[in-house]
Amino acid sequence: MTALPAASKPQVFAHKHLLGLEHLTAEEITVILDNAAGMKEVFTRTVKKVPTLRGRTVCNLFFENSTRTRTSFEIAAKRLSCDVVNFNVSTSSVTKGESLLDTARTIQAMHVDMIVMRHSCPGTPHLLSERLNMGVINAGDGAHEHPTQGLLDTFTIREKKKELAGLKIAIVGDIRHSRVARSDIWALTKLGAKIALVGPPTLIPREFEQLGCEIHHSLKEGIAGADVINLLRIQLERQRANLFPSIREYRLLYGLTRERLRHAKPDVLIMHPGPVNRGVEISQDVADGPNSVINEQVTNGIAVRMAVLYLLSGGQPVDREP
Amino acid sequence: MTALPAASKPQVFAHKHLLGLEHLTAEEITVILDNAAGMKEVFTRTVKKVPTLRGRTVCNLFFENSTRTRTSFEIAAKRLSCDVVNFNVSTSSVTKGESLLDTARTIQAMHVDMIVMRHSCPGTPHLLSERLNMGVINAGDGAHEHPTQGLLDTFTIREKKKELAGLKIAIVGDIRHSRVARSDIWALTKLGAKIALVGPPTLIPREFEQLGCEIHHSLKEGIAGADVINLLRIQLERQRANLFPSIREYRLLYGLTRERLRHAKPDVLIMHPGPVNRGVEISQDVADGPNSVINEQVTNGIAVRMAVLYLLSGGQPVDREP
Amino acid sequence: MTALPAASKPQVFAHKHLLGLEHLTAEEITVILDNAAGMKEVFTRTVKKVPTLRGRTVCNLFFENSTRTRTSFEIAAKRLSCDVVNFNVSTSSVTKGESLLDTARTIQAMHVDMIVMRHSCPGTPHLLSERLNMGVINAGDGAHEHPTQGLLDTFTIREKKKELAGLKIAIVGDIRHSRVARSDIWALTKLGAKIALVGPPTLIPREFEQLGCEIHHSLKEGIAGADVINLLRIQLERQRANLFPSIREYRLLYGLTRERLRHAKPDVLIMHPGPVNRGVEISQDVADGPNSVINEQVTNGIAVRMAVLYLLSGGQPVDREP
Repeated sequence: MTALPAASKPQVFAHKHLLGLEHLTAEEITVILDNAAGMKEVFTRTVKKVPTLRGRTVCNLFFENSTRTRTSFEIAAKRLSCDVVNFNVSTSSVTKGESLLDTARTIQAMHVDMIVMRHSCPGTPHLLSERLNMGVINAGDGAHEHPTQGLLDTFTIREKKKELAGLKIAIVGDIRHSRVARSDIWALTKLGAKIALVGPPTLIPREFEQLGCEIHHSLKEGIAGADVINLLRIQLERQRANLFPSIREYRLLYGLTRERLRHAKPDVLIMHPGPVNRGVEISQDVADGPNSVINEQVTNGIAVRMAVLYLLSGGQPVDREP
Repeated sequence: MTALPAASKPQVFAHKHLLGLEHLTAEEITVILDNAAGMKEVFTRTVKKVPTLRGRTVCNLFFENSTRTRTSFEIAAKRLSCDVVNFNVSTSSVTKGESLLDTARTIQAMHVDMIVMRHSCPGTPHLLSERLNMGVINAGDGAHEHPTQGLLDTFTIREKKKELAGLKIAIVGDIRHSRVARSDIWALTKLGAKIALVGPPTLIPREFEQLGCEIHHSLKEGIAGADVINLLRIQLERQRANLFPSIREYRLLYGLTRERLRHAKPDVLIMHPGPVNRGVEISQDVADGPNSVINEQVTNGIAVRMAVLYLLSGGQPVDREP
Repeated sequence: MTALPAASKPQVFAHKHLLGLEHLTAEEITVILDNAAGMKEVFTRTVKKVPTLRGRTVCNLFFENSTRTRTSFEIAAKRLSCDVVNFNVSTSSVTKGESLLDTARTIQAMHVDMIVMRHSCPGTPHLLSERLNMGVINAGDGAHEHPTQGLLDTFTIREKKKELAGLKIAIVGDIRHSRVARSDIWALTKLGAKIALVGPPTLIPREFEQLGCEIHHSLKEGIAGADVINLLRIQLERQRANLFPSIREYRLLYGLTRERLRHAKPDVLIMHPGPVNRGVEISQDVADGPNSVINEQVTNGIAVRMAVLYLLSGGQPVDREP
């Protein structure tokens, strides 16, 4: 294990928690992205590991199932030589009626340095961050924010397009219930991109116009001239009845096919937070086509999470074996 | 990672297993507590880790759910650089009808050094310790013993009060079904404290008087002049019908409130093994008040478990990088 | 942590995946067994760990429950200093309808080096190996193959009997549904042993004669003069109705007792892949008797899996601390 690349050397990031992207500046987001670029170099080595956070402990506390995001954080932490503990909520005291705050205090009392949490209730990570000393990373709070997803999406676009300013980025799907959409909007607009939200009227609240987004109910119009199309997953579990008629109708109106893709720019990036419903929001050939960066988003997720863990631990890097 | 503090240097502890506190001497308990004090210093460092047990493997084998205790052992082991494997009983051969002994023999055949086990049947760890070569740590066997909880309670009291001898320690609740109470009684009385057991007659067997404990059915009398009050969790799942009328009546008679607290000494320590039922055995303000050491018990649990893992591995510490 | 023993130094093994034993040569199987002998020496040390695969990541992806095999791979990987991630299928995107291939691509995109997978569908690991760049290790695909079990069985016999050539090895039980039997047959016959399959006609397809196996429906005849008896587990969950009358009748006809054991050679090895149904396919005294090597099979499983992980990572060993 050798040292971190220069791009990952300590930089100013004056936060202890990552609760969302709404309240970060463009400069702070850029520090995270620059750092992630350095991290990405690390895990393409044969020895994909640095001793930077050796002796620190990260705890995953997920109140909603998510193997993908939890595993991504786990791998990110291990590549920084952190110890990782998965606190299994379904078998824990939580099922014995313990309050969330008591559970979190117990974890903190074990001298855990950072907690990565997902909860169905918006604002839960913020509540804990006010009451705890350890760092809190929001891995998704209801339909509110999912900041590391927003960062990895932004990172992926910046890596491919070099510059965010002036890009047209279409986000297609159930905007109303999407924490991914909200975090993407915050990060991308701060860095100068223009956002077009596309979907049925029932799934795009008008309030999003106040964030500077265009709203389109026609896929063709929404993706016209787009540099990036980000397709959200249709999550049946999060929808209330009657918000849209059927999966079949959604696919007919909003499913991205090869044929419809020609309305966007030829070098458009196709993104999706996963897991993909092939044949619903995206056709098989588009998901696997040359414009798709879906798998690269997963790779970049590790780099971004390494950067977040590193920056939140506050500039006490250990760059060599003790 | 630097060396262990001096207090953790090899000391005589001639046991391979930790099955309970009943058969340990006051001297042996003191060796563990002294060692834990050294360990506690380790994990307040930034790099909360020593290479002491590198290359050893600890297996958690829990037949009852317990995220708190399992996680505490897992973190303790990782801070000693042990590898940790969680043997998931619910998806294992145990559900295919394999005997407990065969499961344990399989784990031993994998050259696991120590097994940490919880089982609803009293004496199960003792049975395994007689048949196996690897070390066995009892993390709770039915209503019998929970030795590391007894040790961490004793450690916490000693740290705060310096001396156990002469203290009055009240244990309140369902003594009958509590392995915590039993382990506490063994350790605390061996070190010279006086124990008052408090609860309804149905939940305190008369036999406890033979262990030298006072028995009280009035909370006020039981905690009068107490230096420490340890409130047990009301565990509905472990109670047979009709042992007490209702949660509401229990709270009225035995719930510790700020008002009742004045019967104890002003500097009384309030302890609870967790998870806490706020508003049942303890009121909100007492749980969070200045006398509460509930979170420190969790912290000390890691230190005590590090000491136990270290001492049971038998004096072959590796104090430096190889 | 010191270096690997000489027997484990890089050797030619020109495969990236371990999908089965059918297509390996006797020489390739021997390379794995020789390497495993070196690995076995490592984990009888106090520090049972080498830095050989530090910075690599192995992911366990099990679509069928198996704590034994998963834990064995996990321990093997950790003893080589690999990071291990258990991808929990039951809480993952798989339950949200994601395709197996998309799940595997996601894992690969996280720069995981090797995937260890079990799936009820024969050929699944082969499919993934064709579509992915990361190494794929088959930990059981339906009733097809379980190559590391075949290797550990072969290793155990070779260690005890020195030479495979000319040995008579009886495999008793439900051959039809057994991936263990198939992998054993491939490995053992390639190394020169003779196989006798023993069981009721409904559980031994005639096609096995074409692999060079004798077929016996009488236990006494099948194990006559045997050097090794490998008893398969009766797996009720894998049997269709009416393949045999009852557990009781199976035990009467095919259960191995001390009395029946005398038909085999006096130094016969008794093997079982576990978990054992005591009193069904094997009597209590035979399972625990002097001829039994059942627990040694478990030990050897770790050594064989270390060798497989090492050889598949392709000759870039890191033999010292960085």
